Amino acid sequence: MNITGEMLIGQSAIKGQEGTFQAINPATNEKITPDFGAGTQTNVDQACTLAQQAFDTYRETTQEQRASFLEEIATGILALGPQLIERATQESGLPTARLEGERARTVGQLRLFAKVIRDGHYLNATLDSALPERTPPRSDLRLRKIALGPVAVFGASNFPLAFSVAGGDTAAALAAGCPVVVKAHSAHPGTSELVGRVIQQAVATCKLPEGVFSLIIGNGNAVGQALVSHPAIKAVGFTGSRQGGLALMRAAAQRREPIPVYAEMSSINPMFLLPNALAARAAQIGSAFVDSLTMGVGQFCTNPGLVIGLAGEHLAQFQEAASNALKAKAAGTMLTPGIHSAYVSGVERMRAIAGVESVGQGLAATGPCAAQAALFATDAATFLASEQLEDEIFGPSSLIVACKNEDEMRAVAEHLAGQLTATLQLDATDHALAKKLLPTLERKAGRILVNGFPTGVEVSYAMVHGGPFPATSDSRSTSVGASAIDRFLRPVCYQDLPADLLPAALQDGNPLGLSRLVDGALLAT
Amino acid sequence: MNITGEMLIGQSAIKGQEGTFQAINPATNEKITPDFGAGTQTNVDQACTLAQQAFDTYRETTQEQRASFLEEIATGILALGPQLIERATQESGLPTARLEGERARTVGQLRLFAKVIRDGHYLNATLDSALPERTPPRSDLRLRKIALGPVAVFGASNFPLAFSVAGGDTAAALAAGCPVVVKAHSAHPGTSELVGRVIQQAVATCKLPEGVFSLIIGNGNAVGQALVSHPAIKAVGFTGSRQGGLALMRAAAQRREPIPVYAEMSSINPMFLLPNALAARAAQIGSAFVDSLTMGVGQFCTNPGLVIGLAGEHLAQFQEAASNALKAKAAGTMLTPGIHSAYVSGVERMRAIAGVESVGQGLAATGPCAAQAALFATDAATFLASEQLEDEIFGPSSLIVACKNEDEMRAVAEHLAGQLTATLQLDATDHALAKKLLPTLERKAGRILVNGFPTGVEVSYAMVHGGPFPATSDSRSTSVGASAIDRFLRPVCYQDLPADLLPAALQDGNPLGLSRLVDGALLAT
Repeated sequence: MNITGEMLIGQSAIKGQEGTFQAINPATNEKITPDFGAGTQTNVDQACTLAQQAFDTYRETTQEQRASFLEEIATGILALGPQLIERATQESGLPTARLEGERARTVGQLRLFAKVIRDGHYLNATLDSALPERTPPRSDLRLRKIALGPVAVFGASNFPLAFSVAGGDTAAALAAGCPVVVKAHSAHPGTSELVGRVIQQAVATCKLPEGVFSLIIGNGNAVGQALVSHPAIKAVGFTGSRQGGLALMRAAAQRREPIPVYAEMSSINPMFLLPNALAARAAQIGSAFVDSLTMGVGQFCTNPGLVIGLAGEHLAQFQEAASNALKAKAAGTMLTPGIHSAYVSGVERMRAIAGVESVGQGLAATGPCAAQAALFATDAATFLASEQLEDEIFGPSSLIVACKNEDEMRAVAEHLAGQLTATLQLDATDHALAKKLLPTLERKAGRILVNGFPTGVEVSYAMVHGGPFPATSDSRSTSVGASAIDRFLRPVCYQDLPADLLPAALQDGNPLGLSRLVDGALLAT
Repeated sequence: MNITGEMLIGQSAIKGQEGTFQAINPATNEKITPDFGAGTQTNVDQACTLAQQAFDTYRETTQEQRASFLEEIATGILALGPQLIERATQESGLPTARLEGERARTVGQLRLFAKVIRDGHYLNATLDSALPERTPPRSDLRLRKIALGPVAVFGASNFPLAFSVAGGDTAAALAAGCPVVVKAHSAHPGTSELVGRVIQQAVATCKLPEGVFSLIIGNGNAVGQALVSHPAIKAVGFTGSRQGGLALMRAAAQRREPIPVYAEMSSINPMFLLPNALAARAAQIGSAFVDSLTMGVGQFCTNPGLVIGLAGEHLAQFQEAASNALKAKAAGTMLTPGIHSAYVSGVERMRAIAGVESVGQGLAATGPCAAQAALFATDAATFLASEQLEDEIFGPSSLIVACKNEDEMRAVAEHLAGQLTATLQLDATDHALAKKLLPTLERKAGRILVNGFPTGVEVSYAMVHGGPFPATSDSRSTSVGASAIDRFLRPVCYQDLPADLLPAALQDGNPLGLSRLVDGALLAT
């Protein structure tokens, strides 16, 4: 497939006229052809207007139609073959195997949402029978969820496939019945165009209204701001920096009609080393931790950036094992020059903080965007006194916090801001302490793991990739897993509607074969 | 029970020191004893700190414990007997029968949420089995919803029982496991104290931590702002004016940690008169419409403030019937002097708009806060050209909009802002037009009614009392009905937790007997 540098607005391909830019290969700092034309507010308006026009038709397509559409996209992504992986490798510096895995995940997400649509639980179909004899009489009441409206999706830099153009936010929104306008991430515009063309083609193949999908290209923040501010847009999906997420939250709150923003922002993913587990296998945990820390050059939202243990010989063993493991870790290429320089200055800032010691490093950096992994240590008193130590350093850097006793460990847990994950390394004899920590961790994190590592986010029914602010802007939701569809739905109640005006989901006889809550009883199918 | 004018902070009763005020009987403009002492930011902090301390314990009470607690509150409210109704009548001007009905509704809501808790569907218990043989292996993943945190509830003026201290927001939040801090509405402080003391007593009887409930009294907006800004508060429930709701939304967005605000604000509840229904029964609909319009002196969020029909003899018949019915409607006492004066100036403003005609009035006002019902008419062109005509006039005022044809009727529907309800008066021969209107109305409203009137909101499983902005601040939720509990929950995922650390809802063997989604299959009990 030819990469042209155009935006995809409905079924059109339009070269943006607001200047051009090229992708950069972070491994070489070289530009990659072709030129991409940046769009204007007018292009945003075109895409959003088409999305609005498509909305009523698209949201009332059958479950089967939307499921087939998602599967068509999945098939089309696979059909791109090596070209997609090669372009994504050039644009992101990520290794081929990682991107192949990410492609499988992207396709798997689309197929999971196809199943979610067909299952239909997301509709929350609920029926309350009329009670004409009651005083006062009760009307016939029926509830289903409908799509929220056109959704703006901002591609993430660190998952050029799985959280970008056809990634989790897009799949969930399309599944819900929402047209999607994607703002391509400037770091991987070619990858974005390839995937965007697949979706554009799937829209045509499935005979859907063209406004179901558009891909906008922008230089700087103006196009993104225009997108979030457009009256047709009813929700926003974003994965990126806290600064970026906060800007979108502000823009959404300042609209004439405020809209929900689902921003997945920053998390340092604390890992608690409980004493007996640490005594039993400090070295083993330390080495496995470094694998998690350096995987993908640490560029995961769930990267373990904080380790909490009790000061003493076992924590020293952990630190030594981690430090040794780190010495063998090559400096991987980061996604963009900007991310790399932010990492370098984050590590320098950490190094300069009084009370923080540098206790480990990976192999020295070689390429232009290569990041040397870094491990720091401090004590709990220092950690509790410095807010800065809680700032996310996006990349392979982590901080070990030594606590004097269990109370201090609990104080550190209580001190933490919202997180995507919290991990406990524990043995059976640690359960008493774990039970004391769990209530705090439940308040702080969207996912709690035992004896694992937070990197690697399963796409399934029970996954929660979310958490209290600043991990996300909305702790009531997840951006990964089947429940992600709930973000793009709202309930509507139908009172005394004649049978032929009722949506199929709510008709007597249950023609769609849905699980429904009928007079308070859940009738599963 | 003695009304003391004190705040209820946990198990203490504290007289506020920030000035005093008295309730006003709107029927006489006379003050009612005793003095109520207004609280300070310090009192807010006391209440919120207690709520925070209570949270972990309260949210992990058993479903049975919380259900019994809600039932204890319901019993306690009934045990107040005539005193509650008398005080509420004095403070609100609402008739005894209405308040008795509202008390029954309040008690019914508490009991519905007790059932919702015992059913346990709100937990969204979801289990994905480990797949150790898969590449990569899948962990054991289990999801449940937990309470969001302490909730601030602002009592509404127009439902001194059902949407005030022990009203829908409080019942839903307590059911979810959230401690509640209520800001009493200044219009009915005595009613608030009576109900507050019932909850305070129920907390003690059920041996719950005292911070589960507090009742704060404030003069002006400072106490409310302090409450929404307090770090311990994690969500806000509000029913009131658009101005008030917007202020709370701003305060919540400006916090260091932004929190969700569920504000139910303004709606004019359009009613569409489809041509064949109008031809068949214009007079009947007109007269029934006036009953809905003037019920409770029009002081319902769902009051029908807009009627849309095709210009012609049938709409004239409707208008004449409504006008005639209106002539017999007495001027009822409004809730407060402030609401009354806002109504009077709203009606005056409407009367002064060019192209708007006054076509009906109720009986002239007599008492100090009595409101004369008002009916206006205009044409669609005028309506579409003036945003002001969409402003809610809280009280018994409505506007008839005459459309030239069906297209204009659809244009009016499309022009509307978000609504709590939209109503269709239709006959079987109107279904074709109804099908054209429905997609628009689904986008605009939380509840769609056929051949009824929007006043009267059933408390049941399928009810939606919500809708797009400005009807509410968050169209993804409802403030009435069983689903209201969802507002105060967030999902947490547990990965590979040992059996004895798992919450009961997620344990193997399903000890709580919940309906659960297991490997994608819904297993209902």
